[in-house]
Amino acid sequence: MPTTGKQLFTTLESDGTLTVEIASREFPEPTGNQVLVKMEAAPINPSDLAILTGAADFENATYSPGKVVAKMPEPFNSGQKARHGQRLPAGNEGAGTVVATGDSDMAKALMGQRVACVPGNAYSEYAIADAAMCLPLGDHSAEDGASSFVNPMTALGFAENAKMDGQKAILHTVGASNLGQMLVKICQEDGLGLVNIVRKPDQAELLKGLGATHVVDSSDADFMAKLKAAIDETDAFYGFDPIGGGTMVDTCFKAMEQVAVSKMTEYSRYGSNQQKRMFIYGRLDFGPTTLTPSYGFGWTLSGWLLTPFLATAGMETVMRMRKRVLDNLTTTFASSYKTKVDLEGMLTKDAILDYRQMKTGEKYLVLPNG
Amino acid sequence: MPTTGKQLFTTLESDGTLTVEIASREFPEPTGNQVLVKMEAAPINPSDLAILTGAADFENATYSPGKVVAKMPEPFNSGQKARHGQRLPAGNEGAGTVVATGDSDMAKALMGQRVACVPGNAYSEYAIADAAMCLPLGDHSAEDGASSFVNPMTALGFAENAKMDGQKAILHTVGASNLGQMLVKICQEDGLGLVNIVRKPDQAELLKGLGATHVVDSSDADFMAKLKAAIDETDAFYGFDPIGGGTMVDTCFKAMEQVAVSKMTEYSRYGSNQQKRMFIYGRLDFGPTTLTPSYGFGWTLSGWLLTPFLATAGMETVMRMRKRVLDNLTTTFASSYKTKVDLEGMLTKDAILDYRQMKTGEKYLVLPNG
Repeated sequence: MPTTGKQLFTTLESDGTLTVEIASREFPEPTGNQVLVKMEAAPINPSDLAILTGAADFENATYSPGKVVAKMPEPFNSGQKARHGQRLPAGNEGAGTVVATGDSDMAKALMGQRVACVPGNAYSEYAIADAAMCLPLGDHSAEDGASSFVNPMTALGFAENAKMDGQKAILHTVGASNLGQMLVKICQEDGLGLVNIVRKPDQAELLKGLGATHVVDSSDADFMAKLKAAIDETDAFYGFDPIGGGTMVDTCFKAMEQVAVSKMTEYSRYGSNQQKRMFIYGRLDFGPTTLTPSYGFGWTLSGWLLTPFLATAGMETVMRMRKRVLDNLTTTFASSYKTKVDLEGMLTKDAILDYRQMKTGEKYLVLPNG
Repeated sequence: MPTTGKQLFTTLESDGTLTVEIASREFPEPTGNQVLVKMEAAPINPSDLAILTGAADFENATYSPGKVVAKMPEPFNSGQKARHGQRLPAGNEGAGTVVATGDSDMAKALMGQRVACVPGNAYSEYAIADAAMCLPLGDHSAEDGASSFVNPMTALGFAENAKMDGQKAILHTVGASNLGQMLVKICQEDGLGLVNIVRKPDQAELLKGLGATHVVDSSDADFMAKLKAAIDETDAFYGFDPIGGGTMVDTCFKAMEQVAVSKMTEYSRYGSNQQKRMFIYGRLDFGPTTLTPSYGFGWTLSGWLLTPFLATAGMETVMRMRKRVLDNLTTTFASSYKTKVDLEGMLTKDAILDYRQMKTGEKYLVLPNG
């Protein structure tokens, strides 16, 4: 007998109409290595918002219980042509209890257990998940485990990637985010240098309270001088940025290059030989990224996504990372939430206009079964 | 007895005053592996212009025989803080006759020979060069050999780098340049696919006359559709761009991604898994590079310079590349010049305003000894 339950769907039509709604659906019996999870908690991460709200106009949207219809402006509508007309699920990760399993031993071993999972439709009463990606939570609550994948594995991924690339320090442009706070602790544990950029004095205080040594406030008048000093002290020529749009990446490259040039004995029209590396791993700012010709040719900028990184890192590394998350779920990898909502509560005007701002420390937790 | 001769010097003061002048200097006796070359011909490449003219205002400069004083605007003046007050030579490459050598066997073997060299002060009656970087030209003229390093080795470097990275095709955004024409022939010889972007119909004809199969004209109304078709046919997800500023790199990433997405069976909010790679190897446009969030996270953009690439490739590869250049100096690697000037002729208003435009097919050749 298939299980019936409510799930969130997001549909963008070719005319730019975005419909996000809660609707009933049937969930199939899990087969093979699949498990059926009754979802108890799922966070709204920035990476979920791309498909959930995107750049649509929710100020002037039409709201009804469990449904919102908004307009997606250009060029964002055309840019998502590939999803036009498709009724898509949302919610990368969450936690819940396994209520049915496929035939595999790995799946069957999870029956009745509370697990964290990465189903892609976590905003749902039920979800089919891959047993290999489930993390048994033991006595931890669903709330403790709901955010155990995206942020923890991404923050750990930065440290792993830096070490693979022979780096001794990392620069992070949004230091006070939930992920940024995890990164502070990870770098301390792993002996990696870390330069944190924050936007406000209270965020700087927060990070210093966690033991961060290099915190630079972009609202300070001497931000650039302090950023250069921090890079000079740590050798952080390797940074991660979740903003994407605007000039933050450019600012980091400039600071890195100026530190490198200050150590050169002879002028070169081509800039320093110091390799400068930045990764964009999110799009808090949908605007274009601007790169100025002011740091020579020794730089590389890439997009960074967790899934391809994990594929590159290999299963053994992934398993080691997941175990580290589970072992430190309520300490290094703890997440905090501003508020909790049910599925319908996700789609009120107040909620959407609030969580889509992705303010530091104001994450929402969805409780799909109330 | 030291040799005396004229040389071009370029000096940027902290107040933005750029002075480019011809002045007499003494050249030391070559020692060790050095040779003293009486320079006969040196090209003005785009890579020379960065230090020679930069973004300075030569419309309103003060001209006198063998000297020009111009103003460097912001932010370009501050951006070159490291060279403020330094009296720098210019001219990456050229050809001439070895008139004195150091003690090493390699240096002594070059005595009296015509060589191509990379002295960094090629706009000069004499230059000290490293014998290991000299290419004996045999019966070739200095004009034939003057441009045998920068463009040939860069074009070959693209092909070498692509093969190292497992690529089967290259995209080049300025297909009709001198370097671009070399790349057409290299890719034919090496069996690499090549997508050429040009700006005008006559440039497209030129390249097709060389046997290029994929030539896309950015002035065509259906440029984007044709670019995508060419990428689709060649799998050119790996491109080189000498423009730097503006949206060309963005356009290439968009076209690459749209080709990749068209082959996906399922929508992904993160874009395709196709890795897209672009390199900026010049700055024909000093403006900022603009990257839009429209091709997911599977992309990497880097600066590319010849010298670090050669260091990575290793001496054996460099020697193989140089031999290939010499063997094909008047065919695959032939350069053509719009006009020839002497050292003083470089610094007239007409000349500077002309060559700084870096127009395709309008390269200047300097004859330092007239």
